[in-house]
Amino acid sequence: MDRIPLEKKVLSENDRIAARLRESYHEHGILCVNIISSPGSGKTSLLERTLERFPKGTRVAVLTGDIQTDNDARRLSRFGFPAKQITTGGTCHLDALRVERALADWSLDSLDLLIIENVGNLVCPSSYDLGEAAKIVMLSVAEGEDKPLKYPSIFAKSELLILNKVDLLPYVPFDIKLAREYARSIHPGMEILEVSCTTGQGLDQWIEWLEKRGKAVTSDK
Amino acid sequence: MDRIPLEKKVLSENDRIAARLRESYHEHGILCVNIISSPGSGKTSLLERTLERFPKGTRVAVLTGDIQTDNDARRLSRFGFPAKQITTGGTCHLDALRVERALADWSLDSLDLLIIENVGNLVCPSSYDLGEAAKIVMLSVAEGEDKPLKYPSIFAKSELLILNKVDLLPYVPFDIKLAREYARSIHPGMEILEVSCTTGQGLDQWIEWLEKRGKAVTSDK
Repeated sequence: MDRIPLEKKVLSENDRIAARLRESYHEHGILCVNIISSPGSGKTSLLERTLERFPKGTRVAVLTGDIQTDNDARRLSRFGFPAKQITTGGTCHLDALRVERALADWSLDSLDLLIIENVGNLVCPSSYDLGEAAKIVMLSVAEGEDKPLKYPSIFAKSELLILNKVDLLPYVPFDIKLAREYARSIHPGMEILEVSCTTGQGLDQWIEWLEKRGKAVTSDK
Repeated sequence: MDRIPLEKKVLSENDRIAARLRESYHEHGILCVNIISSPGSGKTSLLERTLERFPKGTRVAVLTGDIQTDNDARRLSRFGFPAKQITTGGTCHLDALRVERALADWSLDSLDLLIIENVGNLVCPSSYDLGEAAKIVMLSVAEGEDKPLKYPSIFAKSELLILNKVDLLPYVPFDIKLAREYARSIHPGMEILEVSCTTGQGLDQWIEWLEKRGKAVTSDK
């Protein structure tokens, strides 16, 4: 069973590149966030609602990961900010090397915020550091409140939980109080936002969270 | 980059065990299906609605995979049929060895149907043969109709697509005609059922599908 040592080797190579990326974000005063969720929880919709709220000239860029298609980058490039697709061709997560390559022809001097939308997968992306300042986990209320218990790693590692699609609460059996309890049983003190990209609920708080988190990065520089 | 040969080795070891399982299911005239979806698409709810419809004495058993918790096996054992949890402890998919071990203390002579509920993940489980007669992919209408294009592997490999939670169609932006077109662009001739575990829509057709598929296994014996 030589599998575990090899996984360790792959991960430590990833960590080396992630450390280089983290140093580079730090030098340039960039907040990098890595958004992780199941397929279809609403990551791209949240980014659409986010980018449309940013004034022209906001120094933001988006990398978006998928197994196949560049649908998401096409959806996101409509807002006039740099958006690039990373198509993994089968790999179930983004890794630091793919991020580093995607960033190679962008000037980091022109950015304050880099948002990475990971491949839709609640498991594997949690193991791959992309040099981000914060992981953010998104859970749609259509998915059931037990997910923090079933997929604890990503909830333990994420600073923020976005409970998305709260407009569907009247139609789905989702106990939001229990979801919050489960998340905080895995990660005490975890920040939690309730959001609907359909009604706009919670989007102001999300933008404020990004601003606050961005200031922490700059003041830390 | 010795990663690809190692993955191949792990997969071929898996294939060897899966072939042994397949032979064993064949000998015992068991239909084995492997249900795969994102977290929270409704696999366990479908199995609850399925088991409650089976008459006492139906020769069915369920294996259910999760990273953590035995919630699903507890939910499913209420119906009086054998149900066992496989907790992977971090691994993002079930593999044939875990299935073989879980089956070791069950008598296959007493079964006609074995339902495997995989770990919630639309990517990795598609690479691991569990000896099943058929993979079944489930997609909830809350997840968006573009998923067959973004995660083509599992749609290419599955005999049946279950479009679940169709009761939510009035509340979510999901084009079901387009979802069917996308699925069949990846897998022409794929069977598709529209199901709601809340209203019961499509459950009769699902049970009929299982019966028809079971007969094919028996007549093939």
